Amino acid sequence: MSNHRRRRHRHVRRRTQPGAIPGTIAPDPQSSRPQMQAFLYGKGELVEHAEVQLSEVGGLIGKQPVLWLNVDGLGDAATIETLGNLFHFHRLALEDVVNEHQRPKVDDYGEYLFIVVRMVHGLEQVTSEQLAIFLGPNYVVTFQGLPGDSLGPVRERLRQASGKIRDYGPDYLAYSLLDATIDGYYPVIEAISDRLELIEDETLAGGDEQTMQKLRTIKHELMTARRGIWPQREALGLLIRESHPQISAETRIYLRDCYDHVVQLIDLIEVYRELLMDLRDFYMSTVSNRINETMRVLTIVSTVFIPMTFIAGVYGMNFNPHISPWNMPELEWYYGYPFAIALMLGTVMFMVYYFRRQGWIRLRWLFPSPEPPRHPE
Amino acid sequence: MSNHRRRRHRHVRRRTQPGAIPGTIAPDPQSSRPQMQAFLYGKGELVEHAEVQLSEVGGLIGKQPVLWLNVDGLGDAATIETLGNLFHFHRLALEDVVNEHQRPKVDDYGEYLFIVVRMVHGLEQVTSEQLAIFLGPNYVVTFQGLPGDSLGPVRERLRQASGKIRDYGPDYLAYSLLDATIDGYYPVIEAISDRLELIEDETLAGGDEQTMQKLRTIKHELMTARRGIWPQREALGLLIRESHPQISAETRIYLRDCYDHVVQLIDLIEVYRELLMDLRDFYMSTVSNRINETMRVLTIVSTVFIPMTFIAGVYGMNFNPHISPWNMPELEWYYGYPFAIALMLGTVMFMVYYFRRQGWIRLRWLFPSPEPPRHPE
Amino acid sequence: MSNHRRRRHRHVRRRTQPGAIPGTIAPDPQSSRPQMQAFLYGKGELVEHAEVQLSEVGGLIGKQPVLWLNVDGLGDAATIETLGNLFHFHRLALEDVVNEHQRPKVDDYGEYLFIVVRMVHGLEQVTSEQLAIFLGPNYVVTFQGLPGDSLGPVRERLRQASGKIRDYGPDYLAYSLLDATIDGYYPVIEAISDRLELIEDETLAGGDEQTMQKLRTIKHELMTARRGIWPQREALGLLIRESHPQISAETRIYLRDCYDHVVQLIDLIEVYRELLMDLRDFYMSTVSNRINETMRVLTIVSTVFIPMTFIAGVYGMNFNPHISPWNMPELEWYYGYPFAIALMLGTVMFMVYYFRRQGWIRLRWLFPSPEPPRHPE
Amino acid sequence: MSNHRRRRHRHVRRRTQPGAIPGTIAPDPQSSRPQMQAFLYGKGELVEHAEVQLSEVGGLIGKQPVLWLNVDGLGDAATIETLGNLFHFHRLALEDVVNEHQRPKVDDYGEYLFIVVRMVHGLEQVTSEQLAIFLGPNYVVTFQGLPGDSLGPVRERLRQASGKIRDYGPDYLAYSLLDATIDGYYPVIEAISDRLELIEDETLAGGDEQTMQKLRTIKHELMTARRGIWPQREALGLLIRESHPQISAETRIYLRDCYDHVVQLIDLIEVYRELLMDLRDFYMSTVSNRINETMRVLTIVSTVFIPMTFIAGVYGMNFNPHISPWNMPELEWYYGYPFAIALMLGTVMFMVYYFRRQGWIRLRWLFPSPEPPRHPE
Amino acid sequence: MSNHRRRRHRHVRRRTQPGAIPGTIAPDPQSSRPQMQAFLYGKGELVEHAEVQLSEVGGLIGKQPVLWLNVDGLGDAATIETLGNLFHFHRLALEDVVNEHQRPKVDDYGEYLFIVVRMVHGLEQVTSEQLAIFLGPNYVVTFQGLPGDSLGPVRERLRQASGKIRDYGPDYLAYSLLDATIDGYYPVIEAISDRLELIEDETLAGGDEQTMQKLRTIKHELMTARRGIWPQREALGLLIRESHPQISAETRIYLRDCYDHVVQLIDLIEVYRELLMDLRDFYMSTVSNRINETMRVLTIVSTVFIPMTFIAGVYGMNFNPHISPWNMPELEWYYGYPFAIALMLGTVMFMVYYFRRQGWIRLRWLFPSPEPPRHPE
Repeated sequence: MSNHRRRRHRHVRRRTQPGAIPGTIAPDPQSSRPQMQAFLYGKGELVEHAEVQLSEVGGLIGKQPVLWLNVDGLGDAATIETLGNLFHFHRLALEDVVNEHQRPKVDDYGEYLFIVVRMVHGLEQVTSEQLAIFLGPNYVVTFQGLPGDSLGPVRERLRQASGKIRDYGPDYLAYSLLDATIDGYYPVIEAISDRLELIEDETLAGGDEQTMQKLRTIKHELMTARRGIWPQREALGLLIRESHPQISAETRIYLRDCYDHVVQLIDLIEVYRELLMDLRDFYMSTVSNRINETMRVLTIVSTVFIPMTFIAGVYGMNFNPHISPWNMPELEWYYGYPFAIALMLGTVMFMVYYFRRQGWIRLRWLFPSPEPPRHPE
Repeated sequence: MSNHRRRRHRHVRRRTQPGAIPGTIAPDPQSSRPQMQAFLYGKGELVEHAEVQLSEVGGLIGKQPVLWLNVDGLGDAATIETLGNLFHFHRLALEDVVNEHQRPKVDDYGEYLFIVVRMVHGLEQVTSEQLAIFLGPNYVVTFQGLPGDSLGPVRERLRQASGKIRDYGPDYLAYSLLDATIDGYYPVIEAISDRLELIEDETLAGGDEQTMQKLRTIKHELMTARRGIWPQREALGLLIRESHPQISAETRIYLRDCYDHVVQLIDLIEVYRELLMDLRDFYMSTVSNRINETMRVLTIVSTVFIPMTFIAGVYGMNFNPHISPWNMPELEWYYGYPFAIALMLGTVMFMVYYFRRQGWIRLRWLFPSPEPPRHPE
Repeated sequence: MSNHRRRRHRHVRRRTQPGAIPGTIAPDPQSSRPQMQAFLYGKGELVEHAEVQLSEVGGLIGKQPVLWLNVDGLGDAATIETLGNLFHFHRLALEDVVNEHQRPKVDDYGEYLFIVVRMVHGLEQVTSEQLAIFLGPNYVVTFQGLPGDSLGPVRERLRQASGKIRDYGPDYLAYSLLDATIDGYYPVIEAISDRLELIEDETLAGGDEQTMQKLRTIKHELMTARRGIWPQREALGLLIRESHPQISAETRIYLRDCYDHVVQLIDLIEVYRELLMDLRDFYMSTVSNRINETMRVLTIVSTVFIPMTFIAGVYGMNFNPHISPWNMPELEWYYGYPFAIALMLGTVMFMVYYFRRQGWIRLRWLFPSPEPPRHPE
Repeated sequence: MSNHRRRRHRHVRRRTQPGAIPGTIAPDPQSSRPQMQAFLYGKGELVEHAEVQLSEVGGLIGKQPVLWLNVDGLGDAATIETLGNLFHFHRLALEDVVNEHQRPKVDDYGEYLFIVVRMVHGLEQVTSEQLAIFLGPNYVVTFQGLPGDSLGPVRERLRQASGKIRDYGPDYLAYSLLDATIDGYYPVIEAISDRLELIEDETLAGGDEQTMQKLRTIKHELMTARRGIWPQREALGLLIRESHPQISAETRIYLRDCYDHVVQLIDLIEVYRELLMDLRDFYMSTVSNRINETMRVLTIVSTVFIPMTFIAGVYGMNFNPHISPWNMPELEWYYGYPFAIALMLGTVMFMVYYFRRQGWIRLRWLFPSPEPPRHPE
Repeated sequence: MSNHRRRRHRHVRRRTQPGAIPGTIAPDPQSSRPQMQAFLYGKGELVEHAEVQLSEVGGLIGKQPVLWLNVDGLGDAATIETLGNLFHFHRLALEDVVNEHQRPKVDDYGEYLFIVVRMVHGLEQVTSEQLAIFLGPNYVVTFQGLPGDSLGPVRERLRQASGKIRDYGPDYLAYSLLDATIDGYYPVIEAISDRLELIEDETLAGGDEQTMQKLRTIKHELMTARRGIWPQREALGLLIRESHPQISAETRIYLRDCYDHVVQLIDLIEVYRELLMDLRDFYMSTVSNRINETMRVLTIVSTVFIPMTFIAGVYGMNFNPHISPWNMPELEWYYGYPFAIALMLGTVMFMVYYFRRQGWIRLRWLFPSPEPPRHPE
């Protein structure tokens, strides 16, 4: 429960105080202190700084054709403000960096582009994390709240100079980061797909009381993924259509590929959402049918016994047969008891015949098929 | 009930009489008399007038680079007309000021912009209030029906000259007012989110008869918030896209930030609306399942007893065993009674076996689990 | 029933015969003969003709800056054709005038604008009526089927020269007519709102069998209002956006205000439609719950009695206790009868305990709360 | 059944073989041989050819200002190809002519326009038929599969030279055909409206088992009409907005009128679709309520008898009252039997009182109102 | 089950590793080795190479006006890279070729167009396969994963030079391939339509427990077809609207025809989806009605017997009639037993009369109509 509560709250909490000065940098108090790593590279060489001090950053700008500065942890307003001053970032952009619940977007600040996307994690439970990217003429600065990210492969490619990533400028690096972020959605969606299949199997085998709740959880996770990816479609579309000096024509082709992936992910999420809704409808109709059938059979059993009980009741009446020949002479018959039993059996047989004729009884209900029981204990 | 009635009526009541002259200023008779406060400021200084008389207003215009005149209470047509004449406001705009149920919008009257937004209040019950803003070359005039508002932080920043608000012109002041208004939605949405969680907890514990009604109330409040914020998206979009002489390029960047918040709020409301609908579906399926299960168990109990009662009925028949050996000889058997009891028990055992085989009975129904009872009294 | 039938038919009936010559003026045979009134006015003076003969119309055109000719009743093709010829109206426009089920629209015929709107009437039952407006350089000609209309206040303002209506040209008059028409929707929507509230109160008190039907009726009336107002949004939008020589810049501002009212009305109708749907869902879930609860309680009552009846049946068996000590010795016990009664009571107590433990019985069902009964006779 | 199957199949069958050469003219083998009629006319005169041979067609082109050639029956590929060559029609257009399931559309082939629309027929069961129109500089060629059509009035107007149809060019003729086609939808929609009303009356009187099926059928016919008319909106919109040399400005005004009718029809269909859905919901809720009420009353009857039967069972026990004063002394009481009856009556009265207090019984259930029975046999 | 699982997984699996270098060609390991066929042709002649080696491809380019190289099987990265280098294809396009789950799209790479579409197969179960088309100045290169395809008729037309396909350039060939792909959807949709009709017949005959599952399966297959065809609408629209040097004006007309087919297919799929949903609703309401009717009849049977059983119980009480004249004198009456029987019959007759009056019993329930039983075993 508490997990759930925390997750939902994150949709809305930890914004700057209502009415605060626009551009106020109010970090989440639970966020960790910033850690910085830098990659400086050009065609020929690459220098990696595993840990950069705030005072060193100024010296790194412009030393190589491309500087990638990554900041993990947003817990210190002073650090972020200092960085903002060094790179001349607008205060509103910095405010968005620390308010980690921005919608994915692209803001053009003239000298640099400010890009916000969401990464998703988690195969068991989907969570999302904000990645803020500043793309300038000779740098890329990224901010994220937590140390882990989906960007490992990009670092590896930089180190190994594979895929010519070092031959291109900062725009290609920004693209690579976006692409890695979007690629990170695939395993998450795949895990959801696997869980959905498990539930489908369970449902076909009858389902249990947790089925509805499980489907509801998966739906919320699909929606979390969707909220992360959906606005990226529009943001990427803007990046591709509008001309920005920071982005070369060649990189634009790569961004178009990225855009295709986003559209494909949205389609996939839609497909699974629809499968989920169908599964829910199917489960509910299954449950309803099963209960209805049970009730029907039980009612039929009762109905068959009721006339028999009535006959037994009749012959349990205490009319005195000795007073008159009209008073229950059956009681004194030689075959009175067999006659009563026969009357009862006849009633049952007539009712079974009648109910079958009406289609209310089917023989297989009484002789259950040898298939494995559908609702094992 | 009466509360509810009043709230709903406010959607439609208290408009100018149908067919009245356009531009008729017909204040709500229940509205209080206007109270005015003014801030006059420029880069260097700030003069605050806590209470301004109508006759003083003319003298305040143009005395400082920026004049902010705030009017609380719309109950006096003459005051509003006099103000309108002083600032040359269009009669239609003044009519909208006193008809407090305008949709949020931006009207460009050439010399000044007329902006209408809605503020929301209330953590227990959401209400909304209209804020009308006139943005001219050297003034901002705001009108609102009730004294309380979300604008306190802006006043504080003016007094303390924090965030350089005094360095900018009236456009930045108008932006600050819009921003404060929009920020006022966050705590309201957060409170709704908290109430929704409470109901979710209740529902998972079984829910009660008020659950549907509570969900319905929250839905209506979400819709109230949505109606307040949704048209602001379009209005702000117009402010940003179209060029107005009253708004500087720098302020436009701030308005873009404002726009992002509006979009984020709309997303949040959509998220909670969807959660709410899911919760409603879940609650209804829970209730339906519980009742069905109950009915099933009860029906099974009846069904098990019916054949036993029938057997008892048979041996309660009054056939005379002395007349013939066919007439209920069991009655005269030495072990007749144990035989009948055994017959009954055998029937029960067969039925329980058969029902379990069909999956209609589960043992745990009979031996309820040690978990806390789900529907405490 | 017949009322209903008539109303629905009006959606489709009384069009010109399929395949008729375009521009055929085929008046509704049930429509009354045209009655004409005219207002001639300029800045200084106003002449009102309460009844105008067809032969006089030609002489009125151009006598004053503005001529407003209103035609009530469309039952005579000749009159309408003569008027059409006098003012040079296009035959297609005249065909639309007498086919009173046009969608609201604005057609630009160069020399004049042809505007069709719908007025709504009726607080008990909503009906709508077509108003056709021709706006020319120095005249406004209006056609309507029935004498009553929403235009009374405009006539009054003309007579009293209030609101400077006589200072403006025919475009302002046309605007005033549109505005009065749109204002006429407010009391209608308000009446629907009141009826909806009444039904809400009834529903909270349990509702009755008419509730569904009443909700359905209100929904249809909301839809009637919506069909009348919705296309006016588009039509007014066109009037405002496109430049027409007949409409001055000043009037355009007034039309914008009109447009705001239309959007507000559409919003209101949407709000009430949603409230209505919610109310329907709530009512249906209430009904379903109430019936389910009833069934459950009744079933529990039966279930509690069934084992007791069984025990009574057992001791009603006729086994002869004198034959053996095994044959129902209880019958001969000194406390046999109290033992049987105790057995029955014990069974009931166990079942009540068990059912309460399962959450199937709640004590308050048996001792109804002192609150007023929810389903009074 | 077979009717139904045939209708549905027509959505998809009888296309050119998959992968056939584009422009293959593969007529429906069941289509009849083409029959041609021609109208040649100008301002002054009209020549009608009731039956035109293929060899004569070439000689007719250009003899008069306008040639209207109508082809009924598409069963002969050679004829259609020959006509196509005479008029220089594109093969793809000819392919569309014989594949009679095109969506309504307008294709501009430069020299001529190719217009496809759908006519609807049938007051009992709605069917639709394709009408293909080629509009060239001095001719209109129309193709349809079956002899009957909605174009009779146009022929009549040509013959009688009424409405000046002969004064205009082929564009006005094409407009007249479109208009007649669209006018043909009105009686069809009206018939559907009448059937819907009948069903509404039936539903208010309780409905029967065919109601759902009837509603389903009407819905499908509405959808058939909608599929026929909906794409004509877009097609006509294109005709009006884009400038085509074949269409004069005057005709464009007429086409605008045509467009208005299409929009009105779409609105009407939407209205009836909504009425139908409401009616379905209402019927389903009526049925469900009726069954629930029945079940409730029956259950109450049972519940009232169960305790009485129990009491009778108690006094049917065979405890020997002679053995002890504790053993059913009531059996030997002077007023024992009246006491038992009184006990039973008391139980019933208590239960009826209790059930009424709970709102489960209403007296009018027992004494049905004198209104006509709602569910007559 | 396993089939199903495989199908669903294909939506998402087998993408390049997350974070891999963009343009990585990672073929599906289960894909077969590429097999190549080539057609070289111009107006006069055609050379067909049934099997082309990788080393021969370079020599084929430019030998004839048009080269069509088709590659079946995508299991070898080296082959695809070599081909990409020969034709100068962009790496991102090649990556899309082997990731066979692209959305249909058209990418303009300047020198050539890259077109992705989906073919559907299967009358029993719908599957889809990707077809990637590179359209260059003098070549068309196609890639597909599996040997079978819908392109056979195009090959045949090339060989037989029918339809002048050899007179046109590669753009017409690409069009022909697209057209053949789209034509391949028709038989698939038709098969779905046939299956839907079968289910409709079953449903009208009562349906069985598989009906819901079958409908669900068909819905998923419709969705598969829809996902394949829907994005082709947008892609083809782009091809038609935007000017590409590779596509001639004449071919553009053919593409427009293709576009019409896509729109028609989307309409058809929508029609069948709606039919399916209606059928599902109808089936569910049928099932629910049937069960409700059954329950009602059974309940009525019980209700009729309950009072009779009660009367029997009363006369089974053991009050001693000899003690007083008040104690069940009926037992000693001469016609006591017939009186009791008459009492019972009277009760039954009253109840049947009352129930019929209320509309709860209809005679035809008891005497089922001679129509064939609706739910045969």
